[in-house]
Amino acid sequence: MKPHHLLFSLLCLLIFSFAPNTTTPNLVHTVEEFEAKLKQVQPGDSIVLANGVWTDAELLFEANGTSEKPITLTVEEMGKVILSGESNLRIAGDHLIVKGLVFKNGYTPTNAVISFRKSREKIANNSRLTECVIDNYNNPERQVQDYWITIYGKNNRIDHNHIAGKKNLGVTMIVGLDTEESRDNNHKIDHNYFGPRPTYGNNGGETLRIGTSHHALEKSNTLVESNYFDRTNGEHEIISNKACNNTFKYNTFFECTGTLTMRHGNETLVDGNVFIGNNKPSTGGIRVINESQTVINNYHIGLTGYRFRGAFVMMNGVPNSPPNRYVPVIDSKVNNNTFVNCDNILFGAGSDAERSQAPKTSEFSGNIIYNETKKDVFTIDDDISGITFKNNILGENSETTIEEGFKNAKIKLVKDENGLLIPTSSKIKSKVSISPKIATKENTGTSWYSKADNYIALNSGNTIKANAGINTLYEVVKVSKPGDIIILEEGGTYLLTKAVKIDHPLTFKTNGEEKATILFERMMAFEIQNGGSLSLENISFNGTKSPDYAGNSVISTSKTSMIDNYKLFIENCEFKDMVVNHSFDVLRVSKGTFADTISIKNSSFKNISGSIAALDKETDDIGAYNVEYFIMKNNAINDLQGAALRLYRGGKDESTFGPFLEVEHNVFDHVGYGKKNKYDAALSLYGVQEIDIKNNIFKDSKAINMHLVVGEPIVKVLNNALSNSEKLIVTGDQKYEVDNQWEVAPEFDESSNYLLSTDSPLKGKGTDGKDLGLIKN
Amino acid sequence: MKPHHLLFSLLCLLIFSFAPNTTTPNLVHTVEEFEAKLKQVQPGDSIVLANGVWTDAELLFEANGTSEKPITLTVEEMGKVILSGESNLRIAGDHLIVKGLVFKNGYTPTNAVISFRKSREKIANNSRLTECVIDNYNNPERQVQDYWITIYGKNNRIDHNHIAGKKNLGVTMIVGLDTEESRDNNHKIDHNYFGPRPTYGNNGGETLRIGTSHHALEKSNTLVESNYFDRTNGEHEIISNKACNNTFKYNTFFECTGTLTMRHGNETLVDGNVFIGNNKPSTGGIRVINESQTVINNYHIGLTGYRFRGAFVMMNGVPNSPPNRYVPVIDSKVNNNTFVNCDNILFGAGSDAERSQAPKTSEFSGNIIYNETKKDVFTIDDDISGITFKNNILGENSETTIEEGFKNAKIKLVKDENGLLIPTSSKIKSKVSISPKIATKENTGTSWYSKADNYIALNSGNTIKANAGINTLYEVVKVSKPGDIIILEEGGTYLLTKAVKIDHPLTFKTNGEEKATILFERMMAFEIQNGGSLSLENISFNGTKSPDYAGNSVISTSKTSMIDNYKLFIENCEFKDMVVNHSFDVLRVSKGTFADTISIKNSSFKNISGSIAALDKETDDIGAYNVEYFIMKNNAINDLQGAALRLYRGGKDESTFGPFLEVEHNVFDHVGYGKKNKYDAALSLYGVQEIDIKNNIFKDSKAINMHLVVGEPIVKVLNNALSNSEKLIVTGDQKYEVDNQWEVAPEFDESSNYLLSTDSPLKGKGTDGKDLGLIKN
Repeated sequence: MKPHHLLFSLLCLLIFSFAPNTTTPNLVHTVEEFEAKLKQVQPGDSIVLANGVWTDAELLFEANGTSEKPITLTVEEMGKVILSGESNLRIAGDHLIVKGLVFKNGYTPTNAVISFRKSREKIANNSRLTECVIDNYNNPERQVQDYWITIYGKNNRIDHNHIAGKKNLGVTMIVGLDTEESRDNNHKIDHNYFGPRPTYGNNGGETLRIGTSHHALEKSNTLVESNYFDRTNGEHEIISNKACNNTFKYNTFFECTGTLTMRHGNETLVDGNVFIGNNKPSTGGIRVINESQTVINNYHIGLTGYRFRGAFVMMNGVPNSPPNRYVPVIDSKVNNNTFVNCDNILFGAGSDAERSQAPKTSEFSGNIIYNETKKDVFTIDDDISGITFKNNILGENSETTIEEGFKNAKIKLVKDENGLLIPTSSKIKSKVSISPKIATKENTGTSWYSKADNYIALNSGNTIKANAGINTLYEVVKVSKPGDIIILEEGGTYLLTKAVKIDHPLTFKTNGEEKATILFERMMAFEIQNGGSLSLENISFNGTKSPDYAGNSVISTSKTSMIDNYKLFIENCEFKDMVVNHSFDVLRVSKGTFADTISIKNSSFKNISGSIAALDKETDDIGAYNVEYFIMKNNAINDLQGAALRLYRGGKDESTFGPFLEVEHNVFDHVGYGKKNKYDAALSLYGVQEIDIKNNIFKDSKAINMHLVVGEPIVKVLNNALSNSEKLIVTGDQKYEVDNQWEVAPEFDESSNYLLSTDSPLKGKGTDGKDLGLIKN
Repeated sequence: MKPHHLLFSLLCLLIFSFAPNTTTPNLVHTVEEFEAKLKQVQPGDSIVLANGVWTDAELLFEANGTSEKPITLTVEEMGKVILSGESNLRIAGDHLIVKGLVFKNGYTPTNAVISFRKSREKIANNSRLTECVIDNYNNPERQVQDYWITIYGKNNRIDHNHIAGKKNLGVTMIVGLDTEESRDNNHKIDHNYFGPRPTYGNNGGETLRIGTSHHALEKSNTLVESNYFDRTNGEHEIISNKACNNTFKYNTFFECTGTLTMRHGNETLVDGNVFIGNNKPSTGGIRVINESQTVINNYHIGLTGYRFRGAFVMMNGVPNSPPNRYVPVIDSKVNNNTFVNCDNILFGAGSDAERSQAPKTSEFSGNIIYNETKKDVFTIDDDISGITFKNNILGENSETTIEEGFKNAKIKLVKDENGLLIPTSSKIKSKVSISPKIATKENTGTSWYSKADNYIALNSGNTIKANAGINTLYEVVKVSKPGDIIILEEGGTYLLTKAVKIDHPLTFKTNGEEKATILFERMMAFEIQNGGSLSLENISFNGTKSPDYAGNSVISTSKTSMIDNYKLFIENCEFKDMVVNHSFDVLRVSKGTFADTISIKNSSFKNISGSIAALDKETDDIGAYNVEYFIMKNNAINDLQGAALRLYRGGKDESTFGPFLEVEHNVFDHVGYGKKNKYDAALSLYGVQEIDIKNNIFKDSKAINMHLVVGEPIVKVLNNALSNSEKLIVTGDQKYEVDNQWEVAPEFDESSNYLLSTDSPLKGKGTDGKDLGLIKN
């Protein structure tokens, strides 16, 4: 270093050291200060948001830095600047950096929390969004749409952000290509932590979408690398690729119920990603549609999903498809991928009258498929002569109907440094390995914002006793904590003159033989509100004190939208004498609510004017529905005027999986005969995706009515006895399985109030070898 | 006065004057103080609530006074003690007086704001509720039920209360007879002011109910005297009498859209009441069902209601009726009543297969029926041989098909001191007069609480200019006042990136020839919230910037319940290019919302994927619906994929009147052909009560589909032209009128975008003699 250079450096140091505002230059405390400062800002400057909660702060960060001297918007201290209420951020200009903002406790009034543009014309280029957090920043209306991050412009980097808990309608992050200025964009999306996104129950729950069907044939040229997708289960498409020339590398998909889907656009590279299913239901891998797709070096383990959410899915296409339907698979390569204990790989999936074009000039080679329990994981839905199968390796005991291109090998699984089971065999030439660039929970997101779950389970809290009496349950709930268990007096009588609002997970149960009884004077005993889940055990509900109006229910969801999914468990309860007026239901839900699970077991229902569960409130027919898993086992239902269950999923959307239904070992005795039962059925099912109805007895009851419309539902109606009951009615255009629908009169055991099938071979046994109807304990 | 008496009096005076707490003895400031004081209270004492707002105060006033020394709960100053939030009051014990409490700004969490019992067992007797106010104290959930006053026990008086603005489900005041202790009760309900109760749009909007069908044959023996019912329009039954031996005297019904209904129970006396309709739609009088009813000396003027809300209605009954259906009319007298300019008097109303029993051994005599415009106001729906008609007087030009018991008289109307028009004639023997005890707005309620309306009309405020640009409308609305008119720039472009929330009445209009254009990026441009009403004039809406999701709409109601009815007017507007995704509606409403009026006139709709108005959200089939009056006139509708209108009123309830529908002089050109149009119709109408579809042109369109189920709807489909369109489809079991449904191809005037009928007699003219389709201005 020459002396005058040294001198200059020292001078600079002096100037910087003694500048008056070195500690936090350009610290701003209000939106007005921010806007004023922004007018003076120069390349190289930072604007620093002061610690604290910024409520309803709509920030427009519009400026122009240079490549050497970007302009930065950041925070006084990481994690201490919270944008809440109706806050959002727009970025417009060149060479901008945004770092450290946390959005929580609110939602955007616009269609994006953070947008890389001010308007269609004023966009951001060469800019970076890093270490920002968007956490549960949801519009309280589940069905009102917004995005969290919309990326426009070119050469932007979105990295190390923490983005968790989106629950309302709308993709979490999109890359928009609606103007020329946003195409061939060279964006990099890397090292982001995409935290849990629960099942949305409709289309519009994607986590990342690049492009739209309107611009499917435009090049996006976006790199999506080393991002961690942690249970991003919104819908079927975790990633929805809808443009050309994108790359997905080294991303980890942890227990995601869906797939990386090449929905539209060509020349995608999907390379070196890891999919970990842990045998959770509906976990999927990669789905290929369109042309010239390359899927290589991906590792999949423990994925159980089927049909469109298989571990690997190559779809059929529509001949001469318009861009918004299914372009056939052509010239695509699926090579050197590894599947360990994955249940389903499909070729020609979705084959139907419209999607009649099988894949062409494509290749599936060098893949390793190992499954310890399922012999044949392949489903061939159409002609596979257009796919070349080469050098694929199966485990020792595995098989496939595909005639060429597979050989068996003795495979041993060896744990690698990440704990993943790597297949090894003398027949595997190039060792399977996971890239060190693979995303982990640790190397994504930010270090200063916790990735811990804050979900509190039912029955995880303390036990609280509630004395019998008037509104004692109402009072005890007010002081309860999430997860608490409220114990009712054995044989006690509880009158509710106010509805008990459940806004956190709570259990109510009677300890002891004689159930406590709950009567209620309001239109509902319990109202599940946002954040609530409910478990009821060993309680008797009596409707004789309820108001003389149509539409009472024992349990109701909030009438307003619930952003959180809820759970409801009913075990060993009794519901009776709910006939003060018509349409008295046990469970009544509202539009804009969604249950992960509703389970009703070992309970009895007697003399009720409505339904047990009326889950038919999403009537817009856009694919929405009210429950994912509905389970009904071992219940005795007598004199129920409405349909026992009304389950409705309208529309023809294929981006969700549910509802799933199990109805097993129940007795339906005189069910569905009320004049107000508009479905004229004992069970009314519309558009349900998985139906398992078995080992039940229907006596003097209306029919099961199933309308099967979309999604190749799995429908099994097996080993049920009908006695003086209407026969199964099926409409729609999907397949189903019905077997052993016996028309017999079972014996009726008056004293114990359940029905018995006999041992006569004619009358039949359940699929499990047990008697039909209630299982005797 | 003896000297020592004087001395004693002076002593008393001294003691009272110098007692430390003479000013306000027993003043309490909190619920805890109230409860503590209550424990010490002695007959003759008062407990005085301190001035201020009492939030969430649930008061139980349980005590025992004596007939000479009642115990009083009152307030420091009248009108200055407000019970708000989740407050309520229960009264239990003997000889209690409650005076001066005001309930507003909240709602009760229980099923009653004020109840004359603590529990089923602990009731109030010999007690009085006076000068209390319940004002707009509504549960925000329109469909959650409560009562405002529930009266139990015996010998209670409810007088001079002010009870106004109930809007949620549930009768305003009930007399309960569910235990023996509440029957033959000798209650007096007098001089109460029942202020406006808007149309509820379902059953459950009664203002006063005595008894229930379950106790219909019990004696109530309640006197309802000198109460003022001011536009209590909740539903069909203003008063629902459901027990025996009640008396209704000197009550005034001012512009009430419904009737005093003897729904159940016998031996009712209805004497000397006044019904003033002022020719408002659906205003009614008295409806007789059951046995031994006496209806005398009532005065009716300007009542226009028909069918069950006629000025006078004698129903048919069900032979051997169960108590909750219609007990036939027997031994009833309807004498000396006066009807001035009332439009409908019915005998045998509701006659159908079930209600087949005509009235018997009854009498209609000495009544005066005068109508200046309608010649015959009588409707005879069944056999009237069981009714003796005697000495009734008709106006000079009136007539009836009833053969005996009527004579014409030259009648002159003379104003009495109340301004009511009294018929006088030489043939009228006993002069018609109104009792001086009749209720007036002045002699009912309290003097210290205003009865003024606080409704603010559309277009009653100031004019505000809104500049073209982004979110300028959003900003201007924030500073607007109810009734304001927001003026848009001629030809200006307005982009909304946030939905404009309308929570008070507002008008938006372009002044000048060229419409301003509104584009919007959210799922809706305008969201009508509780308290809002909207008028749009001369504006163009364009859907090309709206999100790529199913379910957008230009106007949406709040997704949460709206307790206030709203109005929507669209005049001379344009809606176009709303096809970004399916089911894009112009108006999308939510369950739990109700419009008084929706009027769409002189507007155009072009290239839209959904419906113009989707008013089909009340799917519980309990009689609820979404709009009272729907008017659609002189609109051009082109390429609309959904049904133009979806209007649904499920269930078989007869306690409401609407919806009312007018569809006139519109052109439907290629309407209803979308694959997602589940109704497969251009207009889908279900359970609508009045349908008037005339002078329209349907070209290349789906059908009008009407399902007619209940209420003897008035259905006219007249003088419409169908060109390559599906024909009218009618289902259900009700009558309708269809005439002049011409199947012709009208000329199509491309340039001016409307269709012309020709002058050819074959092709027809409208019912008004004008061309079909759009009226040229």
